Amino acid sequence: MNVPPDPHLVEVCVSSEPVFDGALLHVRRDHVRLPDGKLATREYVVHPGAVVMIPVRDDGRLVVERQYRYPLRQVFIEFPAGKLDAGEDALDTARRELLEETGYTATTWTRLGVIHPVISYSTEAIEMYIAQGLSHVGARLDAGEFLEIIDLGVDEMLALVDAGEITDAKTVAALLLYARRCSAP
Amino acid sequence: MNVPPDPHLVEVCVSSEPVFDGALLHVRRDHVRLPDGKLATREYVVHPGAVVMIPVRDDGRLVVERQYRYPLRQVFIEFPAGKLDAGEDALDTARRELLEETGYTATTWTRLGVIHPVISYSTEAIEMYIAQGLSHVGARLDAGEFLEIIDLGVDEMLALVDAGEITDAKTVAALLLYARRCSAP
Repeated sequence: MNVPPDPHLVEVCVSSEPVFDGALLHVRRDHVRLPDGKLATREYVVHPGAVVMIPVRDDGRLVVERQYRYPLRQVFIEFPAGKLDAGEDALDTARRELLEETGYTATTWTRLGVIHPVISYSTEAIEMYIAQGLSHVGARLDAGEFLEIIDLGVDEMLALVDAGEITDAKTVAALLLYARRCSAP
Repeated sequence: MNVPPDPHLVEVCVSSEPVFDGALLHVRRDHVRLPDGKLATREYVVHPGAVVMIPVRDDGRLVVERQYRYPLRQVFIEFPAGKLDAGEDALDTARRELLEETGYTATTWTRLGVIHPVISYSTEAIEMYIAQGLSHVGARLDAGEFLEIIDLGVDEMLALVDAGEITDAKTVAALLLYARRCSAP
């Protein structure tokens, strides 16, 4: 989105420092000048970006994962996804993660858009893709990665969203965008 | 979601420690036992939970905000939202934030569901509501809070999603769920 000049809204960086440099998370703390000239503190996760993809089988069913997500102590139903490696193109990440996690390659990739999952405390952007023309060649999970691959119909997934059984934001957003696009005249 | 026993997926906490305690962000690092018995490290933001709401005017238009989000250096179009205070009920948070940020009270609140914006590195859950029967009584922004209130039709917002101008995940998910519910037979 092109940001119009919004001096009544924009915050300007005064200083910036790393405050936590972990194995997974990297946090910065910035001091910013508010529109009224006062100072404030902002803390946020610096993230390399990510991808999520909807792998569509030739019969129309979608390839999804069941994966335990430790922060929430819960198994989630979610579309395949992953973080960009340094310098990696988002579509290359999508191809790599689809193969590693599900064992599928795809011949046709269509960009579905981008979402920002946590605009208040992370720089993360998630590029969304539709992957079609799937061939199963065998998964190559990273060491320490445990997940289950299942397939669900679009209507089945929508029913799971309505029942509160699919709550992962990237999966809900991508599914609803895809369902809307499919039902468009 | 009821988690079925999934010993082939579940990770078990071995130890847990706070590693960053900021003004806004609180990060923990846990050591976990993987399904194969090996150990791994998990880092994640501990979050009190949040709400997002779709305020629907009597003419059907939606009350939305334009707000600068510093981590992404960008003005976002988003539904009103906010974090739970300690011990606060989610619906009370929604009433409080709607009034503080937009100046509206609502007579009718309908729960739309819950989403988890970042299942890989945050405990955050966002309760979603529809707010109807709006009365404008005047905004009471917190000190240091700067935002602009506008109203948009559902179709206008969907067009902005399609154009990539609305990318905030909670707003995209809530809007599409609401649009789908409105168009359901």
